[in-house]
Amino acid sequence: MDGLTEKQIESKEIFNGKIVHLFLDKVILPDGRSATREVVKHPGAVAIIAADEEGKLLLVRQFRYPMSKIIYEIPAGKLEPDEDPDIAARRELEEETGHQCKKMKKVSTFYSSPGFSDELMHVYFTDSLIPGRQHLDEDEFLEVYAVTLEEAARMVEDHQIADAKTVYAVQYMQLRALQK
Amino acid sequence: MDGLTEKQIESKEIFNGKIVHLFLDKVILPDGRSATREVVKHPGAVAIIAADEEGKLLLVRQFRYPMSKIIYEIPAGKLEPDEDPDIAARRELEEETGHQCKKMKKVSTFYSSPGFSDELMHVYFTDSLIPGRQHLDEDEFLEVYAVTLEEAARMVEDHQIADAKTVYAVQYMQLRALQK
Repeated sequence: MDGLTEKQIESKEIFNGKIVHLFLDKVILPDGRSATREVVKHPGAVAIIAADEEGKLLLVRQFRYPMSKIIYEIPAGKLEPDEDPDIAARRELEEETGHQCKKMKKVSTFYSSPGFSDELMHVYFTDSLIPGRQHLDEDEFLEVYAVTLEEAARMVEDHQIADAKTVYAVQYMQLRALQK
Repeated sequence: MDGLTEKQIESKEIFNGKIVHLFLDKVILPDGRSATREVVKHPGAVAIIAADEEGKLLLVRQFRYPMSKIIYEIPAGKLEPDEDPDIAARRELEEETGHQCKKMKKVSTFYSSPGFSDELMHVYFTDSLIPGRQHLDEDEFLEVYAVTLEEAARMVEDHQIADAKTVYAVQYMQLRALQK
């Protein structure tokens, strides 16, 4: 034993929705005692750091119901069942921003909130945009913007950019600019 | 109307656990139709980018039940009810790593997963560690490590570092090193 691993002894489904699949599990801790674990199973998601021909970063402005606030984020979305993240990234980029791209590369994958969810975010970068066609989900309303790196950095300060993947994207662009 | 905002017309509590407080709400969309929204209300969390006297980054290695995996993360934890994040950051740093610090500054706050949760992560930086005393929660098992920035970057590549706040922390340290 590694002294860290927990072993599932019971798993109870609490709710199965469009995004959230919640389980309440019972585990055996490394010291032999038991504890409960709440787990939100999530299909995973993709996000795209997209730089246009002027080097501006594409952002979508949308209302986020959980915090009842309009924020700016990089284009992103959930994976469809069994969807390849590489495919999903191109799909979401076009659906949300109306851009396709020639080339796209994966730059990171990270768990959004490992304490209670298995949501894995796949992050891509592209700077070879070509015109496509925006087509949003029927319950999705958003606006597309392109901002300079300086504007994006200010939006992080102002908290208009306020989510993990987009703060990550701004850092990524800053590192890229410094390393050029 | 801004053409983006959704209005709550119904809210139903589904589950209230130790971390996850789940609601299934009904909203009116900007175009007047209705939709459901799943929301995990979360108390918020703190994370600490802590550099020791050699400039090494403190990491904690722990089993994360949702992905059934041992990963390395920066020290972090949930806010207690009504707790000031500045206090929580010092508390979690000491509880998890056994270090206090002279000075600490907030470097970012971001939503971990704005599509379904209001979890807000407050991120701090300190490079003035002083000895304290580790005291973990009773269902918490973890090991503390200090790694160079080069090692940390390799661990991101290897996916031993695989969560949003820690990937953010490594980029923060890289930007800090380049801007010195």
